[in-house]
Amino acid sequence: MTTIAGITVSLDGFITGPDDRPGQGLGVGGERLHYWVFGGPWTYSGEHDFGGMSGEDKVFYDALVARIGSGIVGRGMYDAAGAWGGHNPFPGTLLVLTHRTADPHDDGFVFVDDLGEALRLAREAAGGKAVSIGGGADVIRQALAAGEVDELCLSTAPVVLGAGKPLFDGSLRLDVEPLEVHRSRWATHVRYAVLREGA
Amino acid sequence: MTTIAGITVSLDGFITGPDDRPGQGLGVGGERLHYWVFGGPWTYSGEHDFGGMSGEDKVFYDALVARIGSGIVGRGMYDAAGAWGGHNPFPGTLLVLTHRTADPHDDGFVFVDDLGEALRLAREAAGGKAVSIGGGADVIRQALAAGEVDELCLSTAPVVLGAGKPLFDGSLRLDVEPLEVHRSRWATHVRYAVLREGA
Repeated sequence: MTTIAGITVSLDGFITGPDDRPGQGLGVGGERLHYWVFGGPWTYSGEHDFGGMSGEDKVFYDALVARIGSGIVGRGMYDAAGAWGGHNPFPGTLLVLTHRTADPHDDGFVFVDDLGEALRLAREAAGGKAVSIGGGADVIRQALAAGEVDELCLSTAPVVLGAGKPLFDGSLRLDVEPLEVHRSRWATHVRYAVLREGA
Repeated sequence: MTTIAGITVSLDGFITGPDDRPGQGLGVGGERLHYWVFGGPWTYSGEHDFGGMSGEDKVFYDALVARIGSGIVGRGMYDAAGAWGGHNPFPGTLLVLTHRTADPHDDGFVFVDDLGEALRLAREAAGGKAVSIGGGADVIRQALAAGEVDELCLSTAPVVLGAGKPLFDGSLRLDVEPLEVHRSRWATHVRYAVLREGA
């Protein structure tokens, strides 16, 4: 079963700007990471005047989502996204990695405190489709280090943030192979196969 | 006159692996950054059994080189490349930024100790064509910070090196706009316009 880690990074490798937290989802300047998600400039207060994801961004995203049967995210991402208003926006069950598994949450989420257990439950729930790992960076690094990731989908936003949370922190060495590229004004999306023998 | 900074980075943003030095050009594991230059795996001892740059890598590179009338590199890059055997392999004059301007060197190179002076001489020498800034990272960052770069060409190699010299070091914030993408097994090449108003 395929496991796909996917995340958006800046040109300098950050998945957030500085000071990311609930209500300031991707940190200072970090909203530029997700211009491709919203189809253009947007703000944390929700102001924008465009039609949402479009073009090659949508081609990339729709093809990815169509492959996915369940997902895993870290608690930090879940909280930063405000639990997506209480409803899981992704296909299938969403496993949330957290040490506070007893916290109340909507039925569309399953709280677990161990990546191995999250992968086991996500693979059971995926119905033969792929499992996605959506972040944060620590969850993706942990899964890569454990050899549990088959594909890495990196969306690179055309911005140098200068600070924030880095995707890679020096703990990993990996060889990967590019499979496909989509590009728009707001991102270059590259799907990579993870080559375990090169790690 | 257009000034183009171009360099190859790993997925985690390094332009070399650790321990780069003369005879070990791009450091430990860093030869994978330039598989696209040589058309496949190569070693610092020069062993390979393939035909050199090809396909989309060559399309990207040839189009870039055709635009360039002169270039600038740092002394570190010049030394790491062994002065390219004493002959400048790039179009036109190559300005080398160095504090040791009196050191002996081939006529194809001009040694200067100031980026502003290098840019002035390179633009004079370019004959109306573009000036390239080829690295190292410090020269590119200095030129970006000074607002002297119009285009940033990043070739991203499909490898996570874990350590080395980073292209970005937290000193810069920039908005850029993707203009063109070429991709191969060994690199994803993206030409970005540098948007000064976003810096």
